[in-house]
Amino acid sequence: MNIQIKTKSLTALRFEPFGDILDCSGPPDKIINGGYCKRYHNRARLDFNNGEVGISFFHAKPRSLPYEFNMLERHPEGSQAFIPLSPNPFLVIVAQNRNNHPTNPVAFLTKPNQGVNIHRGIWHGVLTPLTEPGIFAVIDQIGQNENLEERWLNFSYEVILP
Amino acid sequence: MNIQIKTKSLTALRFEPFGDILDCSGPPDKIINGGYCKRYHNRARLDFNNGEVGISFFHAKPRSLPYEFNMLERHPEGSQAFIPLSPNPFLVIVAQNRNNHPTNPVAFLTKPNQGVNIHRGIWHGVLTPLTEPGIFAVIDQIGQNENLEERWLNFSYEVILP
Repeated sequence: MNIQIKTKSLTALRFEPFGDILDCSGPPDKIINGGYCKRYHNRARLDFNNGEVGISFFHAKPRSLPYEFNMLERHPEGSQAFIPLSPNPFLVIVAQNRNNHPTNPVAFLTKPNQGVNIHRGIWHGVLTPLTEPGIFAVIDQIGQNENLEERWLNFSYEVILP
Repeated sequence: MNIQIKTKSLTALRFEPFGDILDCSGPPDKIINGGYCKRYHNRARLDFNNGEVGISFFHAKPRSLPYEFNMLERHPEGSQAFIPLSPNPFLVIVAQNRNNHPTNPVAFLTKPNQGVNIHRGIWHGVLTPLTEPGIFAVIDQIGQNENLEERWLNFSYEVILP
């Protein structure tokens, strides 16, 4: 049996329990470069042990809707930010935690020119671009500790448009 | 008097004295997500005091070639990475240091789907996208220390295509 969930648009209020939206919303914090550039300062709550942070790249195959999933994962060792090298929206699946198991998954569709930072320990789906080329910069923990927990769900979920 | 410099394509060998190219070149370090995603691990030499790193956004007005400049800057407090939220090439100007003054500026044109990480203390130009929307994620130092030195050059330079 598949449980259908409809995508929600990504808003700061809805996403606040799970992470940060990374974008240029609101007024800039500073105008730099002789007026040519707006700086939106320090938009992510980065959270790492001992500053073990790095910039990596993920190149993921695009998925399409309806999108089915039955596994979520979390990273105990730190936050994980995804910045698309494309203005195209992508799918962000997150879930609440109950007894060390993900529950009530929510599927967000980003707006153009947005990334996300998923907070430490938050259950989330694998990276799901919806368009080529599916290339993202990823700012996450790069130390040697095991940093991945995966959970298979009791049901399969199917993400559809509203 | 304007000194003309021609753009060079960005290669690891040429850019090595100034910073890191951030992209998916070479074989992936890991295949994740059941084969759907390639991870290119830890591509930037991040360099900050006390882990004072953040993700900010820059929204810069696009420039066009020929592009004239007579100022370069550097950041004594840490490295600065630029990740475009667009696959489009942008202009990266860097220079050598002589007696705390920039010398021999070089202008690189990135390839599609590339960012750069400019190392601590390297002289560089302001952010110069060549296309709309000119939005970049920036991973740099977010502490309270003064972190900008600017130098006006003895000549104006004009960047042209080869």
